[in-house]
Amino acid sequence: MRPDNIFVDLPEKAEQEQFLPLLAAPGLRVERIVSFGQASPPGFWHDQDESEWVILLAGSAGLRFSDREELVTLAPGDYLEIAAHRRHRVEWTDATLPTVWLAVHFRADDA
Amino acid sequence: MRPDNIFVDLPEKAEQEQFLPLLAAPGLRVERIVSFGQASPPGFWHDQDESEWVILLAGSAGLRFSDREELVTLAPGDYLEIAAHRRHRVEWTDATLPTVWLAVHFRADDA
Repeated sequence: MRPDNIFVDLPEKAEQEQFLPLLAAPGLRVERIVSFGQASPPGFWHDQDESEWVILLAGSAGLRFSDREELVTLAPGDYLEIAAHRRHRVEWTDATLPTVWLAVHFRADDA
Repeated sequence: MRPDNIFVDLPEKAEQEQFLPLLAAPGLRVERIVSFGQASPPGFWHDQDESEWVILLAGSAGLRFSDREELVTLAPGDYLEIAAHRRHRVEWTDATLPTVWLAVHFRADDA
């Protein structure tokens, strides 16, 4: 048996980000996201009902949070937690190779 | 701000596996596990109350499940889900460099 691998079937180039569900359970969703130069549209902020823990596994990206000046640059292995409703946007992702994210969406409380 | 990185502070060598909690929420626990040649003790099988989704991010490992003959060899990027109470053991991990696992422990139902 060969297990699945998160680095296979990466697009060579893509018009849109690619989302692959990896796991779903009550209050939990794990997905692979592959970006290829995509960024959030100008002026757009993600504002999510769920919390997110995300690790960048390949490529690179710049994240901006509405509550801080500084851009957060992500390299492979970098991870962070984004609380629900903390507004953030992807300023840039690597334009030359796929950026692979592993995102864990979860409920931070039992509500 | 520099985000945390999952590949930092890896032991050069270690007597025991190292566990680092990364995230905890109701019914959810994410941890980094670093192995350095460790394996499950002879005859020991993990039998967990929670389900686990695990991805190997560095190094290599061999997993055995009690319900199949074949050893499952894991390379970086390989992931699999281990249902609660599915008996399994780690037959080996890389003896020459750290093996880094990202383990997501979760409840597969609302019970």
